[in-house]
Amino acid sequence: MPTRLKVAVLGATGYSGLELTRILLRHPQVEKPVLLKRSADSGIGATNLADIFPALSGNGGYPLQSLSWQSLKKQGVELLFLATPHEVSRALVPEAVEQGIRVIDLSGAWRLKQEQHRAIYGFKDEDSVTAADLTEKAVYGLPELHSDKIPNAMVIANPGCYATTVILGLAPLLLAGLADRDKGIIADSKSGVSGAGKEPTSRTHFVSVADNLSAYGVFTHRHLGEIAEQLHLSTSEITFTPHLLPIPRGILSTIYVQLKQPASPERIEKVYRDFYKGKKFVRVFQTPKLPEIQFSLHTNYCDLGFCLAPDGQRLVIVSCEDNLIKGAAGQAVQNMNLMYGFAEEQGLL
Amino acid sequence: MPTRLKVAVLGATGYSGLELTRILLRHPQVEKPVLLKRSADSGIGATNLADIFPALSGNGGYPLQSLSWQSLKKQGVELLFLATPHEVSRALVPEAVEQGIRVIDLSGAWRLKQEQHRAIYGFKDEDSVTAADLTEKAVYGLPELHSDKIPNAMVIANPGCYATTVILGLAPLLLAGLADRDKGIIADSKSGVSGAGKEPTSRTHFVSVADNLSAYGVFTHRHLGEIAEQLHLSTSEITFTPHLLPIPRGILSTIYVQLKQPASPERIEKVYRDFYKGKKFVRVFQTPKLPEIQFSLHTNYCDLGFCLAPDGQRLVIVSCEDNLIKGAAGQAVQNMNLMYGFAEEQGLL
Amino acid sequence: MPTRLKVAVLGATGYSGLELTRILLRHPQVEKPVLLKRSADSGIGATNLADIFPALSGNGGYPLQSLSWQSLKKQGVELLFLATPHEVSRALVPEAVEQGIRVIDLSGAWRLKQEQHRAIYGFKDEDSVTAADLTEKAVYGLPELHSDKIPNAMVIANPGCYATTVILGLAPLLLAGLADRDKGIIADSKSGVSGAGKEPTSRTHFVSVADNLSAYGVFTHRHLGEIAEQLHLSTSEITFTPHLLPIPRGILSTIYVQLKQPASPERIEKVYRDFYKGKKFVRVFQTPKLPEIQFSLHTNYCDLGFCLAPDGQRLVIVSCEDNLIKGAAGQAVQNMNLMYGFAEEQGLL
Amino acid sequence: MPTRLKVAVLGATGYSGLELTRILLRHPQVEKPVLLKRSADSGIGATNLADIFPALSGNGGYPLQSLSWQSLKKQGVELLFLATPHEVSRALVPEAVEQGIRVIDLSGAWRLKQEQHRAIYGFKDEDSVTAADLTEKAVYGLPELHSDKIPNAMVIANPGCYATTVILGLAPLLLAGLADRDKGIIADSKSGVSGAGKEPTSRTHFVSVADNLSAYGVFTHRHLGEIAEQLHLSTSEITFTPHLLPIPRGILSTIYVQLKQPASPERIEKVYRDFYKGKKFVRVFQTPKLPEIQFSLHTNYCDLGFCLAPDGQRLVIVSCEDNLIKGAAGQAVQNMNLMYGFAEEQGLL
Repeated sequence: MPTRLKVAVLGATGYSGLELTRILLRHPQVEKPVLLKRSADSGIGATNLADIFPALSGNGGYPLQSLSWQSLKKQGVELLFLATPHEVSRALVPEAVEQGIRVIDLSGAWRLKQEQHRAIYGFKDEDSVTAADLTEKAVYGLPELHSDKIPNAMVIANPGCYATTVILGLAPLLLAGLADRDKGIIADSKSGVSGAGKEPTSRTHFVSVADNLSAYGVFTHRHLGEIAEQLHLSTSEITFTPHLLPIPRGILSTIYVQLKQPASPERIEKVYRDFYKGKKFVRVFQTPKLPEIQFSLHTNYCDLGFCLAPDGQRLVIVSCEDNLIKGAAGQAVQNMNLMYGFAEEQGLL
Repeated sequence: MPTRLKVAVLGATGYSGLELTRILLRHPQVEKPVLLKRSADSGIGATNLADIFPALSGNGGYPLQSLSWQSLKKQGVELLFLATPHEVSRALVPEAVEQGIRVIDLSGAWRLKQEQHRAIYGFKDEDSVTAADLTEKAVYGLPELHSDKIPNAMVIANPGCYATTVILGLAPLLLAGLADRDKGIIADSKSGVSGAGKEPTSRTHFVSVADNLSAYGVFTHRHLGEIAEQLHLSTSEITFTPHLLPIPRGILSTIYVQLKQPASPERIEKVYRDFYKGKKFVRVFQTPKLPEIQFSLHTNYCDLGFCLAPDGQRLVIVSCEDNLIKGAAGQAVQNMNLMYGFAEEQGLL
Repeated sequence: MPTRLKVAVLGATGYSGLELTRILLRHPQVEKPVLLKRSADSGIGATNLADIFPALSGNGGYPLQSLSWQSLKKQGVELLFLATPHEVSRALVPEAVEQGIRVIDLSGAWRLKQEQHRAIYGFKDEDSVTAADLTEKAVYGLPELHSDKIPNAMVIANPGCYATTVILGLAPLLLAGLADRDKGIIADSKSGVSGAGKEPTSRTHFVSVADNLSAYGVFTHRHLGEIAEQLHLSTSEITFTPHLLPIPRGILSTIYVQLKQPASPERIEKVYRDFYKGKKFVRVFQTPKLPEIQFSLHTNYCDLGFCLAPDGQRLVIVSCEDNLIKGAAGQAVQNMNLMYGFAEEQGLL
Repeated sequence: MPTRLKVAVLGATGYSGLELTRILLRHPQVEKPVLLKRSADSGIGATNLADIFPALSGNGGYPLQSLSWQSLKKQGVELLFLATPHEVSRALVPEAVEQGIRVIDLSGAWRLKQEQHRAIYGFKDEDSVTAADLTEKAVYGLPELHSDKIPNAMVIANPGCYATTVILGLAPLLLAGLADRDKGIIADSKSGVSGAGKEPTSRTHFVSVADNLSAYGVFTHRHLGEIAEQLHLSTSEITFTPHLLPIPRGILSTIYVQLKQPASPERIEKVYRDFYKGKKFVRVFQTPKLPEIQFSLHTNYCDLGFCLAPDGQRLVIVSCEDNLIKGAAGQAVQNMNLMYGFAEEQGLL
């Protein structure tokens, strides 16, 4: 039996981190992951992940270690997953790289190449030479677009949850040059509450969310930067409006594009099918069928469907995923699979 | 004490009809309404509304009568509310008018003037001379737009729930000529399940709706016609996408418009405030505050808020209401208040 | 027109306080209430209740004052509602009484006569002479049981939400001496999340509550004391288990009693109907119909129904209410109505 | 590589059947299952399971066959899962057995040995000799109780969802003779809506369930029979009250027992731990920790926890499971694993 990959997860106490831990525990080519906690993590006193998530009870437990590079090296950890706030990731990734440990970072810390977009996170280019260098080298880990660069990346910037639905929904069309960008592109996205994180706030209080829907971060949400960069759009060519849904998980993005020339539904469907040919985790629905959030929950799929107006020019694309899986932990494992030459769907079906 | 108005409700066994009954029961200028049932109504054997809705128990009951024009006349009913399917309303309104009974119809049967839009309901112009005549005379009962014609109307076509949010959200801007209609207008609407009616279907099953979100009726939803007519748009100038939310009631519409010229948020806010000055049931939120569905639940308000892009040209309008109140029963009572010279907010605060 | 009662509400920024404010604003015999805030209230900087609850927007606003006895006296406030934590109520009620202001306290501070039960709140008898005296004089404000003492009370201890359902569900049976207390009585109660208060905690986070149900406070919940006192039971004769439901509001208590002698359903129904004769806010359902949470939402009703086993001895009683209305704000107004000689249902239908 | 087991599923179009199909598709020792449909199944025209459940899209599809014994034999099917109504199972099991095909039946058709309990399903003993014989031979498939008889069973009667939580919660205590049965045992159970099946009814309509809780089937629910039989109780010794929760899946049963003698929590915990020693799918929580529905969702665990009153005699047991997994499909696969000598947890972790 071949040696299994040794990985560590920092931030397993959050929603994405928990999901990641669950997937890794079932992955046949990975050792039981080393689980790390930060002092600032919720449940600070906990020494076992099952104390924080009783859903993990009863299998001998999942001890939490404090982060120590020396200890990680000693345990033979080759790959570190960071499910941490972006400030933490910004600080830790250079350290990990110095130790020769590869990183898949689930935060927004390393996703953006353009300074104007990074500004929204408060990062400045002059932070450090290392940071500038890593910003350059980090690979945006969207396997359907960058499977060429992911295998050899030292640092993977795992995409944002909203961004994944919008980019996968638009890429085929934009790369084929079909969209009339002058008319403006709109992504109206709706997400379950786990996307807002585990921190209890008045906004995540059950009574605030239940029986409700609210828009937020219009024109200012951080994912706008990565959407624009990956799709080669300016931020005035795309309008992105996130909404908070009264469900625990799942994203549906309704995307509006106008085509330069009238097209047939068959033509559009072919563009999508050709683009995602061989991509296991994008499912293109046959028009007029549309994906719904439920269809992709607890899976690593991003589901795409579309409707074309009778005029053949106005196109509505519906893109769905589980924000904790394809939008976070599942995509991270998909990246790991590519980095280590495992089958892309290993541990994800 | 002055004589109170005598009204009847057909279809009290549905969601809008129940809400309407509740409002009328509390209205100080209206007699306890005559409640009518059709043989096709759910709970066909029921002789009391409390048998169908136990929430109405304990106050002596609400007997259901079968519809009889003779009996209505004898009881002195002056106004009939129809909370019935559009085919039923299409058949009954001419009969009521012939009897000299005014009608507020909550269905889509009489909302549309243009034949192309009516076609979606399967109505043909040659149905009957009466129908053609009534189609002409029926007043679209959106009090914020048509308070001049409502008082004397014989037939009020009460607006659709989605349509109310979209029309009220766009009217000030379009009438001021600020919108660049060539760029296309988008209304991305999300509704609670009561909007889909009380009929149990696989689509309204709890397990299908909970933890889900789905788009439907893209480019084909019936409310598109009234939105276009009321806003003087062609159906290719506006794209309307309804979605089914996992909540019992409430609508949020996110509306996207591009302006002909860059404007300031103050300018936009003034346009809205001026337009709705003195209109008690539209609340304009001060930018950057946005309405949420919860804020208008169980009220007759339509709440409006907006965000303007840094470029001053892309405008996102958020419009919320309770689909059963401002989107149906409350608006019907608001129309009744105007028809009979009662204070517009009577029974609605 | 007669002078209206002048009241104040401290704690309008919480869920019960908001509901109370809404009811008082519609009450025909009460002036627009004076709204008071404490420095510790959430939304501390807010000067208007509409800033905290945008649902209250658009009617000129609801200014928040800081508590000052002098100012209250000057404004002619005769009655103070406290929707505050019990420690705060314990401190403020003696002050209010000293000022000659009557109090309806929605907390648990003054509900308990027996020292053993008060201990659970950490109150000691020797706190102060005044406290001991007020503990004695405070009237437990359950109008269906104590309508004789409420009218003249200086201090009303408004009942707990769970307690209201359990006491009203059991009182007729226990007072008639039908229950076999030796076999043990069980109240299995389920409440919506607003009962847990507005404070954001990991327990009230949407993701913790949604798609979940949990039991808590088994054998230790504070409401056990008032249930036992009001029903003249020892705490070993009744087992009370609260659960947290994934809904914003509403309580259903399933209560299990064994009868000393077999009885017929008719006999049991008669006991309940006789006991609640003339009580407007208790609805007794005809067996085998059972109340559901939805039936009493947004009303001041406590709904009761029951099932009797084929053996005629095991009885299951189902008791439902809206925890924010009959379980808090509505009941408080019902008490006010009795204290000031208004019709009991004034403002509550 | 050894030959994999060949199985068929009738009723994959229902909730339990879908869950079962999903588990079987991932099971390493089972061939892709043959999926069968009945003419009466919903989605009657569908020829592929992905047409009914789009969540299954994109893997080449899951064709549905019509049931034919000849065809099943030809395909080498050794084991048939029935996720069908009990009348259907009652009719089909004798046929399957005659063909030499073993059956795991998820309905209530074969669970009951006592005629008095079977009466509730409308089955009569004289139905047929075969039926009487199979009733005798069918094994109640609760692996934690009957792992001795399951391996050789021809017909497994897979337990009811509610029954699984109640039986597993009570068995250790009753078999140890600790419970005072004369005082009565109470199981107050709450289930998600998938337990009510996929049929759209007014009871499963989203608007009826959301923001609600209701009790039903008090003293009459069919699962009472199997609970009583398995625990050797009379139906007057146990009261069972099911409730419908506003969640898609999951059951929590709160069980009340009085002990003959006062005991310590340690004693009780030991009784449970000893009983479930080596049982992989029952997790006993350390008092005072209690399981919640979320903890066991999407797993095959039944989670147990308890609270003991200060008097040491009143015991509250909380028992949770996913009704579609441990309460149906997962338990069925657990039974299959025992029947074919696979590891008990195979395909279930």
